[in-house]
Amino acid sequence: MEDKHMLMIPGPTPVPEKVLLAMAKHPIGHRSSGFGEICAEITENLKWLHQTQSDVLMLTVSGTGAMEAGIINFLCPGDRVLVGNNGKFGERWGKISRAFGLEVEEITAEWGKPLDSEDFRKKLEADVQKHIKAVIITHSETSTGVINPLETINKYVKNHGKALIIVDAVTSLGAINVPVDDWGLDVVGSGSQKGYMIPPGLGFVCVSQKAWEAYETATLPKFYLDLGAYRKATCKNSSPFTPPVNLIYGLQVALEMMKSEGLKEMFTRHCRLTEATRAGVKALGLPLLADDEVASTAVTAVMPTGVTAEDIRSTIKKQFDISLAGGQDHLKGKIFRIGHLGFVSERDILTMIAALESTLITLGSQKVTPGAGVAAASKILG
Amino acid sequence: MEDKHMLMIPGPTPVPEKVLLAMAKHPIGHRSSGFGEICAEITENLKWLHQTQSDVLMLTVSGTGAMEAGIINFLCPGDRVLVGNNGKFGERWGKISRAFGLEVEEITAEWGKPLDSEDFRKKLEADVQKHIKAVIITHSETSTGVINPLETINKYVKNHGKALIIVDAVTSLGAINVPVDDWGLDVVGSGSQKGYMIPPGLGFVCVSQKAWEAYETATLPKFYLDLGAYRKATCKNSSPFTPPVNLIYGLQVALEMMKSEGLKEMFTRHCRLTEATRAGVKALGLPLLADDEVASTAVTAVMPTGVTAEDIRSTIKKQFDISLAGGQDHLKGKIFRIGHLGFVSERDILTMIAALESTLITLGSQKVTPGAGVAAASKILG
Repeated sequence: MEDKHMLMIPGPTPVPEKVLLAMAKHPIGHRSSGFGEICAEITENLKWLHQTQSDVLMLTVSGTGAMEAGIINFLCPGDRVLVGNNGKFGERWGKISRAFGLEVEEITAEWGKPLDSEDFRKKLEADVQKHIKAVIITHSETSTGVINPLETINKYVKNHGKALIIVDAVTSLGAINVPVDDWGLDVVGSGSQKGYMIPPGLGFVCVSQKAWEAYETATLPKFYLDLGAYRKATCKNSSPFTPPVNLIYGLQVALEMMKSEGLKEMFTRHCRLTEATRAGVKALGLPLLADDEVASTAVTAVMPTGVTAEDIRSTIKKQFDISLAGGQDHLKGKIFRIGHLGFVSERDILTMIAALESTLITLGSQKVTPGAGVAAASKILG
Repeated sequence: MEDKHMLMIPGPTPVPEKVLLAMAKHPIGHRSSGFGEICAEITENLKWLHQTQSDVLMLTVSGTGAMEAGIINFLCPGDRVLVGNNGKFGERWGKISRAFGLEVEEITAEWGKPLDSEDFRKKLEADVQKHIKAVIITHSETSTGVINPLETINKYVKNHGKALIIVDAVTSLGAINVPVDDWGLDVVGSGSQKGYMIPPGLGFVCVSQKAWEAYETATLPKFYLDLGAYRKATCKNSSPFTPPVNLIYGLQVALEMMKSEGLKEMFTRHCRLTEATRAGVKALGLPLLADDEVASTAVTAVMPTGVTAEDIRSTIKKQFDISLAGGQDHLKGKIFRIGHLGFVSERDILTMIAALESTLITLGSQKVTPGAGVAAASKILG
């Protein structure tokens, strides 16, 4: 059946109709006063979303581009950085750091487990000469559905005093509390196709005063990703290079929708969606990759036994037209991932659990008690 | 009057309705087979548009990002480059080159004049030790409406043998013939909000075999803009980082429209639009910045006397809701620029000339013979 697709991957996420229609308007000039007014409103609303008074800058990039900008603007070749790596994205920030000649020390954890904040405490306390210039942490690891202990790690970074905390909030922003100013986060990167509820194509970098001080002496080469140029332009409600006008129309509407819902309500909704998803999946006899205490409110990774992850994905796609994400790298074929961030309602979770239940029965799974998944999810939502 | 805006700036350019509506579709997963099919079709059509068998890669960036990728992927720190600078964009490619530690020699011409190919011949012939690693040329200089002698300069680059030719075709691609393989252009950068007829947010880089050979030994740091990653992904009809799915929906439709029109017909149309614009403007007594022989088919810069450029722009905007672009840097306030590339028809040119004529009369210009502008433009189009 055409046009009945349901997107439940951790990005791109579903886009509200009024955002889609806003994007279908004719573009206007990006140097016009009308566009400047849109930018001014968006800048204020981005600060609200980030819970910050610092600059939030908007770039035409994917989330990876935003994180690259967040790293290279504040460091010099040879600078030492601690990078948390417990999944595809943590690994990527290490790769970017090495590509730019930084001295990378990785603190790893198994995929599906959170980073251990104690590892960071020890490294940071031992660094009496303050060689560590930045600590790079993925808040919500999209590849595994794990939330890392950002708040605790950040306390150790603050005790260290010198190092910046650079945060990948790509799938956490909007889905879980990231109080940038309260916690004193220095650099926070995110991308449009996640909690923002708009299609991919925009990246965001939030920059603290302390990070701007580091920027002054940072020497890694940059031009398109030079955040100083974006800061200067943003002050004038403009952009250094031609911005994606139509995506920005969509962003304007999406931010208004987020403000109408309210930050606290958004986080609560994501919690409920996550709990209902996890309860439903467990009741269907499928093991979850991450433990409850470290579960991301953006995405849930499921490690099925008895039936394969790829059979589940292809069958639920074919019969119910629901897209679930697969695993990445060594988890490819071993897990599937359910995206539940952004424009996702409780109804969507019930739908997905019901379809998953039916899919498992179709695939001949022995462990499924018919109705158990939906019953368990309903209990959370009730 | 709401929604009656007419966009005549050199980017963003007007977007066809069916492209806008394609962009308003729900996004699908960028790793899905359905999206892979779209990418496969687009890759073939991008090659058609570039008249090449080489790779044409698609990045989530503005035109500047595409050009930065086109420069940094093929060079090493300290490499010598010749940069043509006769406007805002030529100047920018010099800035990028310097930001990445290249040894830049600029060949300049006054804004509004073309680069002199003889300057390049002399420099390239004198470089017997083959220190020049690349020549960077802006084909159509958007800030002034001048076409640079790319074909001739490129011949001298070919005689040199070692240097790559890196071309900013941001406002020339689709508006004037850029036969990439016939001419042997090594790197060609472009952006979506120009001849492509879609909103900003996508950049394109076309890369020759010779450039890929240089890539193998190039050491400037890169990750998000690493074209090797894009080449690898493009072979699998994919992308290394999340692409702007909805803009790509629009691109798919726009490329189909371009193919329906035909390359030769597109170039002929842009020539006619340019000639009609220039004839109309001249007949209104307004001097043009660039000479006829070097006129860009994308944009025409007008240097009014008697009335100011900014008065013309604000009056035509207020009364007729037509957006014209202003001048940049030292030409700010001295010129205005008429964009006539992409989704622009002969009717649009007549409309704009008629409105410009009326605007000049409103502003009390003494030089206008009523009807002269439209008559002159009509004569070209008749």
